[in-house]
Amino acid sequence: MIRVILLGAGNVAQHLYKAFYKQPAITIVQCYNRKGVRLHPDQNENNVTKNIASIKEADIYIMAVSDDAIKTLSSQLPFTNRLVVHTSGSVPMIAINNSNRQGVFYPLQTFTSDKAVDFAKIPICIEGDQEKDLFLIERLALLLSKKTYQISSAQRNILHVSAVFVNNFTNHLFSIGNDICKENNIPFEILHPLLQETAKKALEINPNKAQTGPAMRNDTKTIARHLKLLSDPSQQEIYQTLTKAIQSKYGKKL
Amino acid sequence: MIRVILLGAGNVAQHLYKAFYKQPAITIVQCYNRKGVRLHPDQNENNVTKNIASIKEADIYIMAVSDDAIKTLSSQLPFTNRLVVHTSGSVPMIAINNSNRQGVFYPLQTFTSDKAVDFAKIPICIEGDQEKDLFLIERLALLLSKKTYQISSAQRNILHVSAVFVNNFTNHLFSIGNDICKENNIPFEILHPLLQETAKKALEINPNKAQTGPAMRNDTKTIARHLKLLSDPSQQEIYQTLTKAIQSKYGKKL
Ligand SMILES: NC(=O)c1ccc[n+]([C@@H]2O[C@H](COP(=O)([O-])OP(=O)(O)OC[C@H]3O[C@@H](n4cnc5c(N)ncnc54)[C@H](OP(=O)(O)O)[C@@H]3O)[C@@H](O)[C@H]2O)c1
Ligand SMILES: NC(=O)c1ccc[n+]([C@@H]2O[C@H](COP(=O)([O-])OP(=O)(O)OC[C@H]3O[C@@H](n4cnc5c(N)ncnc54)[C@H](OP(=O)(O)O)[C@@H]3O)[C@@H](O)[C@H]2O)c1
Repeated sequence: MIRVILLGAGNVAQHLYKAFYKQPAITIVQCYNRKGVRLHPDQNENNVTKNIASIKEADIYIMAVSDDAIKTLSSQLPFTNRLVVHTSGSVPMIAINNSNRQGVFYPLQTFTSDKAVDFAKIPICIEGDQEKDLFLIERLALLLSKKTYQISSAQRNILHVSAVFVNNFTNHLFSIGNDICKENNIPFEILHPLLQETAKKALEINPNKAQTGPAMRNDTKTIARHLKLLSDPSQQEIYQTLTKAIQSKYGKKL
Repeated sequence: MIRVILLGAGNVAQHLYKAFYKQPAITIVQCYNRKGVRLHPDQNENNVTKNIASIKEADIYIMAVSDDAIKTLSSQLPFTNRLVVHTSGSVPMIAINNSNRQGVFYPLQTFTSDKAVDFAKIPICIEGDQEKDLFLIERLALLLSKKTYQISSAQRNILHVSAVFVNNFTNHLFSIGNDICKENNIPFEILHPLLQETAKKALEINPNKAQTGPAMRNDTKTIARHLKLLSDPSQQEIYQTLTKAIQSKYGKKL
């Protein structure tokens, strides 16, 4: 049995609550958050506190709070030498105050509060300062997902910047496609199958091998015509920057 | 019964052959290509020609040839006043020599020769100069896919530039994510579920509503740290350009 206390009440805390709650080998002893709100309608109010001084005892304290709050909150905890982990992709493990034992439990996925997630499919990146703590974090992670990886803080940083490209920037490209279609009365749905196939291909073959398009073909006529079609300077700049990058990566020059 | 002649022997011609071949309402009368190769192992050699002068009669001639070849090849056809269409996303319909009736049959998907495709899921963008031709092109398209859209040459241009963002540029971002991971001995597979979820979300909600990340949050500390982590100037430039674009789109300034 692993006894867990969850700190925070945002997206990640709520999704973790639901996932832990389903596992008989995990007990959620208590939840702490500034407003004292429950993380789930089934949760007993007595198991919620907004008073940091009344946090109970547990095997692991999971701080699913904003990146900026990790340092402060960990320094305010009213106990020492217990295992405290955060859930962030970009904060180093040592940001956790060293009056307690440190660790990381980072679920690498994008969470939205109203959208159910299947933790079995989510990679969990774990880190622990002490070996026995790492084992406990790993046991906890494996109860949710077999895709559990030991990742150092330095590697987690790299993963996080890659995730920005794969998720945030990609989404911005999708939003440009959507905007351009909307402005020209074309349903963006026409592009949905292409969008799906693009993602599917990247999972099946190395994306370096899947590169196609006017930049790859060095098709300067099409590139010039596209740039004329784009009226938004930001869209033009993105088009140019990415075209240049593809051409220089694959050895073709404008 | 629609009698079709396919010109070209590349990716698109081969996939169209397979799809037409399955439809009892479509007869592939003949295939023309420069090398006289068959498009399918089942094809009878007598139905292939590399001699443009011996092209037979059909209801519709589909030129699935390189964009640059559409104009020339259409001017070399040894007949007049028949329906000739191309399959390109970026070439205007009127690039087809006007000695024949013009049209477009553009399947909006990315094709790879060795990867089977399900045409039922592929949007087909059609155009025709004459109404009766448009109807024939539409009937042919509907036999392959219910997702058939009448799209003007101008709209097709817009779709094509959107497709560059959604497919080619997105793939380049995936390839950067992959490269960064590889360089740091991190399996790119850890990012696969995030990549899938990013695409899935864009199909379910407007991508403008799905935007997250350091740029969106105006998290200048993380942005600066990420830029330091990137050693490749092209990756840095893309990071900066997209960060700036997201910030200016959603009203936050660095
Ligand atoms: N969202 C994702 O997709 C995702 C994915 C993986 C990892 N993460 C990481 O998980 C952590 C939580 O993210 P989230 O998306 O759940 O954030 P969120 O929805 O914005 O929730 C943040 C939570 O932190 C609390 N908080 C902020 N400052 C605090 C302080 N000084 N003391 C105590 N509590 C404080 C907030 O409390 P109030 O409600 O009282 O403001 C809120 O409950 C972050 O480290 C994030 O990087 C997020
Ligand atoms: N690939 C895609 O994902 C995709 C998707 C939608 C639409 N399209 C469009 O479909 C068309 C064909 O694309 P593709 O991917 O099938 O191209 P591809 O695989 O490169 O094949 C091009 C074909 O065109 C032929 N060709 C080139 N120049 C010619 C000429 N002067 N006379 C006769 N034949 C000539 C080539 O013949 P040789 O074999 O003898 O060189 C080859 O059979 C293009 O307009 C393209 O924009 C492509």
